[in-house]
Amino acid sequence: MAKKTQGRPRAQNPRGFRDYFGPEVAERDAMLARIAAVYHRYGFDALETPAVETVAALGSYLPDVDRPNAGIFAWQEADDGDWLALRYDLTAPLARVAAQFRNELPTPYRRYAMGPVWRNEKPGPGRFRQFYQCDADTVGAPSVAADAEICAMLAEALEAAGIARGDYVLRLNNRKVLTGVMEVAGLWDGADPPRFEAERGTVLRAIDKLDRLGPEGVRALLGEGRRDESGDFTKGAGLAQEQAETVMAFMEAKRGDGAATLARLREVVAGSQTGQAGVEELESIAGLLDAQGIGPDRAVIDPSVVRGLGYYTGPVFEAELTFEITGEDGKPRQFGSVAGGGRYDDLVKRFTGQAVPATGISVGVDRLLAALRATGRGGAQAHGPVVVTVMDRARMAEYQAMAGELRAAGIRAEVYLGNPKNFGNQLKYADRRAAPAAVIAGEDEAARGVVQIKDLALGAELAQGATLEEWKSQPAQREVARADLVAAVRAILERG
Amino acid sequence: MAKKTQGRPRAQNPRGFRDYFGPEVAERDAMLARIAAVYHRYGFDALETPAVETVAALGSYLPDVDRPNAGIFAWQEADDGDWLALRYDLTAPLARVAAQFRNELPTPYRRYAMGPVWRNEKPGPGRFRQFYQCDADTVGAPSVAADAEICAMLAEALEAAGIARGDYVLRLNNRKVLTGVMEVAGLWDGADPPRFEAERGTVLRAIDKLDRLGPEGVRALLGEGRRDESGDFTKGAGLAQEQAETVMAFMEAKRGDGAATLARLREVVAGSQTGQAGVEELESIAGLLDAQGIGPDRAVIDPSVVRGLGYYTGPVFEAELTFEITGEDGKPRQFGSVAGGGRYDDLVKRFTGQAVPATGISVGVDRLLAALRATGRGGAQAHGPVVVTVMDRARMAEYQAMAGELRAAGIRAEVYLGNPKNFGNQLKYADRRAAPAAVIAGEDEAARGVVQIKDLALGAELAQGATLEEWKSQPAQREVARADLVAAVRAILERG
Repeated sequence: MAKKTQGRPRAQNPRGFRDYFGPEVAERDAMLARIAAVYHRYGFDALETPAVETVAALGSYLPDVDRPNAGIFAWQEADDGDWLALRYDLTAPLARVAAQFRNELPTPYRRYAMGPVWRNEKPGPGRFRQFYQCDADTVGAPSVAADAEICAMLAEALEAAGIARGDYVLRLNNRKVLTGVMEVAGLWDGADPPRFEAERGTVLRAIDKLDRLGPEGVRALLGEGRRDESGDFTKGAGLAQEQAETVMAFMEAKRGDGAATLARLREVVAGSQTGQAGVEELESIAGLLDAQGIGPDRAVIDPSVVRGLGYYTGPVFEAELTFEITGEDGKPRQFGSVAGGGRYDDLVKRFTGQAVPATGISVGVDRLLAALRATGRGGAQAHGPVVVTVMDRARMAEYQAMAGELRAAGIRAEVYLGNPKNFGNQLKYADRRAAPAAVIAGEDEAARGVVQIKDLALGAELAQGATLEEWKSQPAQREVARADLVAAVRAILERG
Repeated sequence: MAKKTQGRPRAQNPRGFRDYFGPEVAERDAMLARIAAVYHRYGFDALETPAVETVAALGSYLPDVDRPNAGIFAWQEADDGDWLALRYDLTAPLARVAAQFRNELPTPYRRYAMGPVWRNEKPGPGRFRQFYQCDADTVGAPSVAADAEICAMLAEALEAAGIARGDYVLRLNNRKVLTGVMEVAGLWDGADPPRFEAERGTVLRAIDKLDRLGPEGVRALLGEGRRDESGDFTKGAGLAQEQAETVMAFMEAKRGDGAATLARLREVVAGSQTGQAGVEELESIAGLLDAQGIGPDRAVIDPSVVRGLGYYTGPVFEAELTFEITGEDGKPRQFGSVAGGGRYDDLVKRFTGQAVPATGISVGVDRLLAALRATGRGGAQAHGPVVVTVMDRARMAEYQAMAGELRAAGIRAEVYLGNPKNFGNQLKYADRRAAPAAVIAGEDEAARGVVQIKDLALGAELAQGATLEEWKSQPAQREVARADLVAAVRAILERG
């Protein structure tokens, strides 16, 4: 039942939601189209699932979830009592689709998807509760060749979006290696029901915070816990010293080159079959990428990458932008992650009971757009429409005809539809619209079979506040025969 | 709190929601891009508002709403108690934006928007609870020139989408004429607080059902009420005979040409200033459209068009497709309405208290797509990817390199990533993907520096169940030098 509003409703987005205006929409659409073209060329097919899923189908994979429906927008259906929710990512709906249409879809099924997702989190500066993701996944391919393909495609997609080679690096890891570490540390023993699940979750989240907290912060979270600067205490995993050292050794296993890192990882997970298998997978992926020309300058094995989501089971990857930007504190910092993903072999199994291997990537669209803007490679601003001014209300049909002729020639054009009395307002409007030209045709022009065309780029500085007569005298204005309207406007556009 | 699910979750969309697969997504995107190009050329700017609004900002304008939050998906925020909801159209969010950003936006503000909207209605065959709309609106332009522009642009958008001239007609009416009718019938007297609101609503909805119920059905709804075939009784407006006849005279005022219809409407609303003003507006719009070449073959005045939504205040329009399709009952029927809109001068005022004139159109995207399919003008199916088969798992990097070369040449291509053991499965997969060609390269081919290329369009009928040896012997298969892979595949694509 709606809260009764006193008087007028507020003209305001709900907290954490925002609007996107013309150039922002165009910029994002253009970037997504470039990425989609790469995905499509790799044989991936589009899929669009609805915004709404059952809560049961979505499952609970968001990090740091400690209450039912936390992190999602959910509501109960009045008639059948089902709980529905807005999707929080594009992967959970894909798993539902892969199960629902398992007899119709090809195996493997390569699909891409782009669209908004919703998180019911506390909004903050630059942190919105609706944001875009752009995913590509392969369902039904167990081989690491599928993981390598996803990584290679991600590199190509980033470059297609406008990120230069050298400005990004793919960081690869494997959850199986992490499982091996857990096994070595005595936190995983394959028991059913599983033991130490809470501890493993805390370890995972602690590693995921390395960038932010540094090694000492992570070490604290592996042990008793950590008090942050505000005084808040986060409880740790409670590991013994030796256990924590095993985890730290894993996290800090990165060496100067891939072979050395792999060798170090083999040492760390010695004794764990799962761990050794994970290291071998990493080696295979790196080899396949290298064969496709994606060498250690663009793809590195980095054991500190674990990814926050709970559903990963094998290789995990992250795309990080390596150029520096100025942080909110005024200090330079690396731009950071714009995409991440990995293998999740059990997500479809939730529905069907049968293992269906799957791997994929999700691009953070808003972050990537921000990166393009930071490097000056955001979308070029398209110019505004040619504005046909209204000198004489009775001649509206003729003004519409002029705009129509311009449009038929492929030129963006509109008739001024505000109150035409104050001519200055018409010119201010044209300025505000970034109009390249304005067309003026009053009774006098009509009688002589001509129109005035104002080149607004040339005349912009004079337009503000000038009278019609002053304005007409400027050199940026030309009188042409009515029949030459389109040609004259086109000449202005081509010069611009 | 989530309902506890017994065992596995069902792999199923919530009722009334559906998924869109590859060609459907591509078809819609292509159509929307063609429509957006028209909107953009007319000077309209894109706007994307979030899916979520406050219930207060959305207001209650859905037809047949008889309980709070009926027709929308709504939920209450846990922290501040605000009610949020998914937007039910793109117009209510525009009104919120126009009020929220009134100092930043140009006046008039022409904007277009495309995206999903949600209605919490009972789902049925072909009736979904999430569907696409594609809107264009002009905010801040009081003149009927803005209405005429919207209509002309709609005609152009329909043609750009693929509807042939002659296959559609714009039907125009004016809520002011309807207000005049109410005044003449004694159902509107300008009193504050207003009287007879419920009756006027019932009359509006009755007229809106003319297509479905016929004149006698409408007449019953104007009077005591109507019992439908199922035995359900709908209460009527309770009008007296004479009142009902006035409404019927309005609804049936359409004559053989626009001038005659206008003359008849003037008779019906004689004595009502508002009604007369409405007729004059209709005359002006028809005149402006005629001047733009949109004559009575494409735009007709039709008093039976009233539009269901509660916020219209002036001209209303509908685009109807006039070609026949076969209905669900096997009988031919006209395709019907694919777009509608009108003027809503009070929607922004809800927020600001100041009148802001506005007018716009909404295209029913799914209906329009269905129409394109019905006329065989749906999107052309793009072919699937070239499939590089896996003869030898150890050569995976080389297969990836082949696919990479094809993609670098702009050819859609992928390596088979399922279990490669059963070669027949690889061919079935290629068939299912509508692959134009398959590439085969085993140890033997590698040793000789060649690849086999199978033209699947030629060989489709043979592929099913054939052994590798049989398959290799077919004429649709060619052996080419490894270096000629791209050229040979391109030759197949260009022939196709």
